[in-house]
Amino acid sequence: MSVKTADVIVIGGSAAGVTAAITVRRHYPGKSVLLVRKEKQVMIPCGIPYICGTVGSPDKNLIPDAVLEKEQVELLVSEVTAIDRERKRLITASGEVAYDRLIVATGSHPVIPPIPGAAMDGVFTILKDVDYLRRMQECLKTAIDVVVVGGGFIGIEFADEIRKTGGKTITIVEIAPHCLSLSYDEEFCVEAEQVLQANGIRILTATKVAGFTGNDRVTGVKLSSGGTIKADAVILGTGSKANAELGKAAGLRIGATGAINVDRTMRTSDKHIFACGDCAEKISFFGGGPSTLKLASIATLEARIAGANLFGITRENPGTVGVWSTALGDFALGTAGLTETMAKALGYDAVSAAVEGPNRHPAGMPGGAKTKVKLVFESNSGVLLGGQVRGNGVAGEIINAVSACVQRRMTAEDIAMFQMGTHPALTASPIAYPLVNAAELAIKEIRKRARP
Amino acid sequence: MSVKTADVIVIGGSAAGVTAAITVRRHYPGKSVLLVRKEKQVMIPCGIPYICGTVGSPDKNLIPDAVLEKEQVELLVSEVTAIDRERKRLITASGEVAYDRLIVATGSHPVIPPIPGAAMDGVFTILKDVDYLRRMQECLKTAIDVVVVGGGFIGIEFADEIRKTGGKTITIVEIAPHCLSLSYDEEFCVEAEQVLQANGIRILTATKVAGFTGNDRVTGVKLSSGGTIKADAVILGTGSKANAELGKAAGLRIGATGAINVDRTMRTSDKHIFACGDCAEKISFFGGGPSTLKLASIATLEARIAGANLFGITRENPGTVGVWSTALGDFALGTAGLTETMAKALGYDAVSAAVEGPNRHPAGMPGGAKTKVKLVFESNSGVLLGGQVRGNGVAGEIINAVSACVQRRMTAEDIAMFQMGTHPALTASPIAYPLVNAAELAIKEIRKRARP
Repeated sequence: MSVKTADVIVIGGSAAGVTAAITVRRHYPGKSVLLVRKEKQVMIPCGIPYICGTVGSPDKNLIPDAVLEKEQVELLVSEVTAIDRERKRLITASGEVAYDRLIVATGSHPVIPPIPGAAMDGVFTILKDVDYLRRMQECLKTAIDVVVVGGGFIGIEFADEIRKTGGKTITIVEIAPHCLSLSYDEEFCVEAEQVLQANGIRILTATKVAGFTGNDRVTGVKLSSGGTIKADAVILGTGSKANAELGKAAGLRIGATGAINVDRTMRTSDKHIFACGDCAEKISFFGGGPSTLKLASIATLEARIAGANLFGITRENPGTVGVWSTALGDFALGTAGLTETMAKALGYDAVSAAVEGPNRHPAGMPGGAKTKVKLVFESNSGVLLGGQVRGNGVAGEIINAVSACVQRRMTAEDIAMFQMGTHPALTASPIAYPLVNAAELAIKEIRKRARP
Repeated sequence: MSVKTADVIVIGGSAAGVTAAITVRRHYPGKSVLLVRKEKQVMIPCGIPYICGTVGSPDKNLIPDAVLEKEQVELLVSEVTAIDRERKRLITASGEVAYDRLIVATGSHPVIPPIPGAAMDGVFTILKDVDYLRRMQECLKTAIDVVVVGGGFIGIEFADEIRKTGGKTITIVEIAPHCLSLSYDEEFCVEAEQVLQANGIRILTATKVAGFTGNDRVTGVKLSSGGTIKADAVILGTGSKANAELGKAAGLRIGATGAINVDRTMRTSDKHIFACGDCAEKISFFGGGPSTLKLASIATLEARIAGANLFGITRENPGTVGVWSTALGDFALGTAGLTETMAKALGYDAVSAAVEGPNRHPAGMPGGAKTKVKLVFESNSGVLLGGQVRGNGVAGEIINAVSACVQRRMTAEDIAMFQMGTHPALTASPIAYPLVNAAELAIKEIRKRARP
């Protein structure tokens, strides 16, 4: 009996899976690649909040299969029920398939907090499933009182997008003292909260959800502070957990965070099986401890490592820097590496400096916005630990320049010597370029500390 | 007789001078700093083209003196007529001033090409002088036929800004086969030309100006190709030359390019005198040969080196990378380091790769534009030599991420492992992030070459 065979099989069709497949084709053009996924259509994960408002529908937020066709990656839509490592075969709903190398990119699923009533109708998680999200969108169309549980970036983006549909009362309930506090220092969190509030969104911080009221259908959210707020739709933006079950069932080693354990080459405990993306365990760029960050950009980095290493190791994972941005209309925030709060919590002797100014010169040039850049350095070595940017749309690429500096462990001195391009219509003035000026201010502060 | 004295004197009040003065105050807070300049008001140099259209007037394009006041830099508006190095004094129109350390930041002046008639009324250079530019603007108000000589970035920006005032026939005359060809590979130059042409600007490339017609006032431009085009205003955007006279007269060593010679610490041949900006000689980041690039961003880098080194060397100039961008409305171009053409001309075995895609994901997110990124690598080491970006306004910061990679001599492998932040409303998808994908394509190409 002939069995379907591919040199390389990738399980999973989201950011990690697609990138892994493309990377294999680029690095090993002679190898055949089969991508197996269970979803007929795959959502762009980061675009999900935008289906509610700006994009308008899940169908307009799909990863196109054309990228696979272009790179000659074969596609099989079928659920993998088991990995037979002994025989190097996958057991799928549509039969067995044999591999030489396997990449597991099975992603993650939303964490449903153990809140009484969370299973009621009208309470939604952020499931990356087209049909589920269509149902969510249907419910949101008629909902008047919407509660978003969790003020992380997914939560605030959902809240602001739902707001755009109009006529609703929207409340974010966040357990921490501020929204976004896992990724931004307090001053940036406060600014984001002010934008949300100015948009008419109510924010309850330092507040736990004690339960949901209603019979079959949610009608309200009980708060730990006492009292209940009305709700005919609830979105749970409360984090996600690795889909490690398939790997675990196959006997792959599972790490401390519950994800599939991998080494720096992205290889699992089976030398023919690699894992990448949300299902794979991550270590931090800073000190190498475990990281629970899950971002599509991390997933694609890991996929480029896994895909390149399949038949000979050429890449090692330096660890997760953690670079991402978020936007509320024209207000954008970016973060790379450690915040000052995180750096201090990890034991670094951190020094920070922030500058703020127009991102045009002269300031009257159109399209500009005041831009704030904060850089955090280790005070003894002067090495950059992280940066945060607040501005308009350009913040998303400024943070990538910061990220390059973090990745190469540039010091405040290196950044003070940064050769940046500037232009009246596009950037801050060369006299006031924020990265450079923040570095100079940090140097001044570091010297002050060094003098007794 | 008491003579005015400062620990540090800076001559020049533009990008280099202001930045040098601020840098001294930051690095040596105990030292007094006096900035001497001859202009009552200082133009933002890169903003000059925009006074014609977007900004509207030279008075709205000034470097504010507040930055000097804030850093406690004293200001003296007076022309320096000589440097008495023996007595460490400046001779100025308003008396002598004594220095301990001197920074010369006297800038540059426009090159007037030896074209018959260039001194006629109606022919303007790009003099950084408020009154002169006001006269130019007055002339442009009534001019109908405007000719811009030189299709570099200053030339094309002027042409497009004058176009915005309406009702004119505008022609760019460029000696090279393409506009912008000193800084961009041909495919990018062609795109910029198409934008200008779509805006109604006529471009004559591979064309020399043979002379200007008219009596006292210009009436036409004679072309080397034969024929004369009508002109009642001409702008010469034909490069600039270092203001080295003051330094030369004081006996400072002058370099091969006619600028004031400096070492990598920005020190001149007099150990108490430093120079920076357009008046100082530059060397290239690539091979260390002479560079004639003059940009405000280079000037400020050199100023940060000079200012920090005055009383003890802490910084060395790695050489000029050459990073800058230009914009024609929503169309923006950025360049960092070497183009493919330049790299090959310098003898590098260059490999390039370009990718193009939307800078949003899904592509339907608003505010997006197709963005093209081209990276140029040295094929043996894989080291990044340069990059070019074409897109909308975000291109100005993407090129700064590229610049960071060039400065740290990152390889194609390093960039393939770049940890970028992505967001639907702000950037390309993590699967298609252009820097990373261009690096992956270059790696593929480099490997192909390595295999015989």
